[in-house]
Amino acid sequence: MRYELHYWDGLPGRGEFIRLALEEAGLTYVDVAREPAEQHGGTKAMMAPMKDRHTAYIPFAPPFLKAGDLLLCQTANALLYLGDKHGLAPSDEQGKYWAHSLQLTIADYVTEAHDTHHPLSTNLYFEDQKPAAKQRSAAFLEHRVPKFMGYFERVLAQNPAGDTWMVGDSRSYVDLSIFQIVEGTQYAFPLGVESFDDVWPRLAALRDRVRELPRIAAYLESDRRIPFNESCIFRHYPELDQKGLATGGKK
Amino acid sequence: MRYELHYWDGLPGRGEFIRLALEEAGLTYVDVAREPAEQHGGTKAMMAPMKDRHTAYIPFAPPFLKAGDLLLCQTANALLYLGDKHGLAPSDEQGKYWAHSLQLTIADYVTEAHDTHHPLSTNLYFEDQKPAAKQRSAAFLEHRVPKFMGYFERVLAQNPAGDTWMVGDSRSYVDLSIFQIVEGTQYAFPLGVESFDDVWPRLAALRDRVRELPRIAAYLESDRRIPFNESCIFRHYPELDQKGLATGGKK
Repeated sequence: MRYELHYWDGLPGRGEFIRLALEEAGLTYVDVAREPAEQHGGTKAMMAPMKDRHTAYIPFAPPFLKAGDLLLCQTANALLYLGDKHGLAPSDEQGKYWAHSLQLTIADYVTEAHDTHHPLSTNLYFEDQKPAAKQRSAAFLEHRVPKFMGYFERVLAQNPAGDTWMVGDSRSYVDLSIFQIVEGTQYAFPLGVESFDDVWPRLAALRDRVRELPRIAAYLESDRRIPFNESCIFRHYPELDQKGLATGGKK
Repeated sequence: MRYELHYWDGLPGRGEFIRLALEEAGLTYVDVAREPAEQHGGTKAMMAPMKDRHTAYIPFAPPFLKAGDLLLCQTANALLYLGDKHGLAPSDEQGKYWAHSLQLTIADYVTEAHDTHHPLSTNLYFEDQKPAAKQRSAAFLEHRVPKFMGYFERVLAQNPAGDTWMVGDSRSYVDLSIFQIVEGTQYAFPLGVESFDDVWPRLAALRDRVRELPRIAAYLESDRRIPFNESCIFRHYPELDQKGLATGGKK
């Protein structure tokens, strides 16, 4: 199977959730935007399926994944497919839907994390919506981070197979995605979640466990891994961060 | 199969997408929050699965669907299941993933529609974030409504089976959801999308086609259908609406 990941170059963003799954499954894939134009890569090639005026299947936005002739739009949908085909999710019916619903909740968190720096419009620069961004970030840290992280911590605590993995007794794409949002949140709001590991110890342990999966560890050392930066969902703007706001009252 | 829909009483919200699918599939279901407490209904019973400290499967938020012993959290996930089991989605692999990805894009639109009146925090009242809500609504109407509706219109136009249904040649849960977001957008922003039917004629025709599906028509006449209102995602606040902003430049 030929896999093509279509996502922007230069930022981890939503594409990274799919990239982590491809890496952990040990799959070879083409990261289209990051290939040279002479080899049918680059941003134009990455975007081409969106502009196709004849296809039935039109991506709304990157990321999307091509799996042979199959087009998989939307991050969670691509993970649903990869989970099913490559042992990155439970194979029983309840487990499959449960893993997918956790991924959809992660997607909701990602959208909220994005909107901390763009609360008014994606068509305005951050600099042009900074006062609103400060308010939204404060609300995100005070209310939303504890709500989401507290929920994911509880999912680990209530997993009948133990708190090693989010779903059942082996690693799934959900664990990889939790790793990415925990890392992203700590990157964006180092002060706001400064006591992360004390407040949500199971999530912290899971983050470290994922980081040490052999294939993930090798990937993180490679130049295929794109660091968090200020073109991405999780952005570190010191003026949006507030010491202990997400974790201060939770010990 | 016993179906239980768990969602707030009094607003259509995200629960309505599942309700429309249950209705169109001709399924009997218990709308838990709307049943009397003496019959194991009401808000407390609706929320109970979220508070269960022993289960492996914990809903993050309503809506969620119980299908016998199976728990389906997240709107799009419940629709994925219903589509598969009750002929509300294509049965081929590409069609199934394609329908689901459209539903996930609809979910993104729903989140953005919600944030027009709550751009800063869901923990503040609308009245306490009105200036930001005006800015976000203007950006939503000017940029986001045309982007999403233009996309869905194009999906219809490029459907090789014709522009009658969103996916393939028969109605799916995607059509029901498109009906709901078109109705919701027209409810919330009657001036902003005043030329909706001229600008996106295929979507307008689809909205009317869904409204006339016999089971949907009967449902819409019943007291099971909850009207749009200002506790919901799509809220009509005249101060957020602006004449022709979404449709003015698109003819």
